[in-house]
Order: sequence, then structure tokens, then C-alpha cells
Amino acid sequence: MSSITIIGTGNMARAIGTRAVAGGDSVEIMGRDRSRVEGLAQALGGGATAGTWGAVPAGDIVVMALLHDGVVPVVAEYGDALTGKVIVDISNPFNATFDGLAHGDGTSVAQEAAKVAPSGASVVKAFNTIFRHVLESGRPTVFIAGDDARAKAEVAEFITGMGLRSLDVGGVTMAHWLEGMGLVTVGLAGNGIGHGNFALGVAELAG
Amino acid sequence: MSSITIIGTGNMARAIGTRAVAGGDSVEIMGRDRSRVEGLAQALGGGATAGTWGAVPAGDIVVMALLHDGVVPVVAEYGDALTGKVIVDISNPFNATFDGLAHGDGTSVAQEAAKVAPSGASVVKAFNTIFRHVLESGRPTVFIAGDDARAKAEVAEFITGMGLRSLDVGGVTMAHWLEGMGLVTVGLAGNGIGHGNFALGVAELAG
Repeated sequence: MSSITIIGTGNMARAIGTRAVAGGDSVEIMGRDRSRVEGLAQALGGGATAGTWGAVPAGDIVVMALLHDGVVPVVAEYGDALTGKVIVDISNPFNATFDGLAHGDGTSVAQEAAKVAPSGASVVKAFNTIFRHVLESGRPTVFIAGDDARAKAEVAEFITGMGLRSLDVGGVTMAHWLEGMGLVTVGLAGNGIGHGNFALGVAELAG
Repeated sequence: MSSITIIGTGNMARAIGTRAVAGGDSVEIMGRDRSRVEGLAQALGGGATAGTWGAVPAGDIVVMALLHDGVVPVVAEYGDALTGKVIVDISNPFNATFDGLAHGDGTSVAQEAAKVAPSGASVVKAFNTIFRHVLESGRPTVFIAGDDARAKAEVAEFITGMGLRSLDVGGVTMAHWLEGMGLVTVGLAGNGIGHGNFALGVAELAG
């Protein structure tokens, strides 16, 4: 059982919140629009609560379910309220043509968020390779990246509790390449697969 | 049935050559070291032939089974001998710490090879997300990227003929992100999976 705060009230907030409540997690929703926050908390059920924007999150894990260009500003705005928290960045910072990232080489939203996060907070990249509807109806693999082993273990427990497989790809510098796998996922849907009912995963050999 | 020339005599040349011969393809091996070329052609069997370094390849598809920093120089050295060929780049241009690429943003070995290839040649990125021993003993998914639909169709037919699944992720700019998936594969082996008996693939939902 994990204790989660989701910042955001959009489709990914709803999808992650739904899975978290089903997994028995304690869930808090935060957002700028109070009526949307209360509406989502009520829709999730399972004791999900409506938090106050900018306050210290109730959850040990804080999922930033925001558009990619909102993540860093919101981490900065929350500031010390995130001290000691595990911040989860799920964003896909795509460029306009969906074949590159909105930022350059050697960084990622996760790494930029870590730069403005308070001391004692850790950032983990996760969930960004998964289409929202696949998270709702499938059992996709969740790839994670981050520098803090304890934070990754907490996120892995959260993911496992949702009935999903968590796979650690390495340190936070790998978040850039997970963002690239987000691009590959979109590329596959437009070229190699022709629909969006899939997720990248891993096939293991016996033996 | 495809007609393939493999430039290189190392482990990946052997693995791809073995699968190609098993799939009934016509296979030619080329390399600087004549004795190694003849040794590999003989080991592959199935009528595999030993070609002459720098000559026009017999295969319609030319697989560059070389270390990453050898691909562009060899494409340049072959020059007009590659006119009309489909050049397959399988390389992983990793940096020394295996968390980034040896080249910068917005390019890939495939794109650099395309710059020096003769007119009428096309470059396709493929196979780079697969460990050699998985290619030998498993049925991994092969992700491909390239700008030329006809060339990709030929490579897809080659891959399918080997009994493997080919998935198109988009244009050649996506080769950079397939190289990133090579990094993720190594990262998974070192962190999330703990062994190398796997390959990245795709899980599809029913319906």
C-alpha cells in the first residue's frame, strides 16, 4: 500500500488514480481548479481526498500528472512543500513533429525537475511510455529511471501494487532515453502497428 | 527470400548470417580479412559466399555488422559500389558510461551513413536493440527506422523471413531514439532485469 498525491486532474491523473485506488493506495488529488479536484477525488472513490494547491502533499509519492511544460514550474512553485517527497515525472516533452524532444541532449523533464526540487526530494521518471487508455485497460510494463535507489523502490512498490510490472532502466540520465521511448511508442502507433492498443515491454527468453 | 551481403565477420555478422541462411536467404560475407571471410562463409553453409572487400555487394541488402565507428567510413569507402543498395545499420554508438550516445542530438549512425552513401542507396536502422545471444537463441522483435518505404519493406521481408517480427517506428530521425533503446536495453540488463536473456518488444491488448 502506497500513499500517493497526484498533482493534476486530467486523463493521466484519472488513469493513475483509478489504478491506485484499485490497488488500495491512499490517494490525494491536487490541482489549481478546486471543483475539478473535488470532482476527480469523488469519481475515484476509495477515500480519495481533495488537497489544497501548494500545501504539503499527504502522499509520500507525488505524481506530476501535468503537461510536460508544467512540471518544472509546479515543482518550483511547490518548493519546500516537496521536501522528502518522491516526485514522479510522467511527462512526454515531444517537439512539434513528434520525432524529437522539446529540450536538448543530455537532459529530461525529470532532470530539470530535480534541479528545482528541494533537498531531500527525489525525482523518478515513470509511466511516460504508456498511452493513457492502455494504462486504463491493460497491464503495461512501467519503465522507471532515477538516481535514488530508495525512491525507486517506493515507486516500484507503488507500481507493483497497481498490478503492473516495474522495470528499472538506471539512473536519472536514462530519463532522456525513456522520453525517447515515448517517441518510439508514438512512432509505432503511426507506422509499425497502426493502432494504439499496445505498450513497449520486454520479452524474456526461458532459461 | 532475400539476397544479403554482410560486411563484417564478428559475432553479429555470424548471428545474422546464421538466421539468414536458416531462412533460405542468399548470403555473401565481406570483410578486410580474407581468411576470416572465408571461414565465416564456410561456417554458415547454405551456399554462403565470400565476397571481395570493396567490390559491388551481391546482396540487395547490405548489413553493416561493424563497430559503430566503422560504419560511416566503410560506407564512404565502398562509395558507388553501394548504389541502389539497402544499407542496414545495426550499430550502438554508446558513450564510455553507457548512458548516452557517442554523437550528439538529432543524429545517429544511420543518418551519418546516409550522408556519405551514394545516390539511390537507402539506409535503414535495425537490430540494434537486440543482444547477440538473444538473436541467436530467441525470437526478438526487430525495430526498424528509415525514410524510404521500399527499403523498409525489403528489410521487413528479410526480418520476417528470419522468423522474427519487424516493427517500423518511423523515419530515419527515429534511428537516434532506437539507439537510445539500445542504451535502455543495456540499462535494463544492469538494473531492472539482472540478466541479458531478453529483448525490448511490444505487448498488445486484445480488441
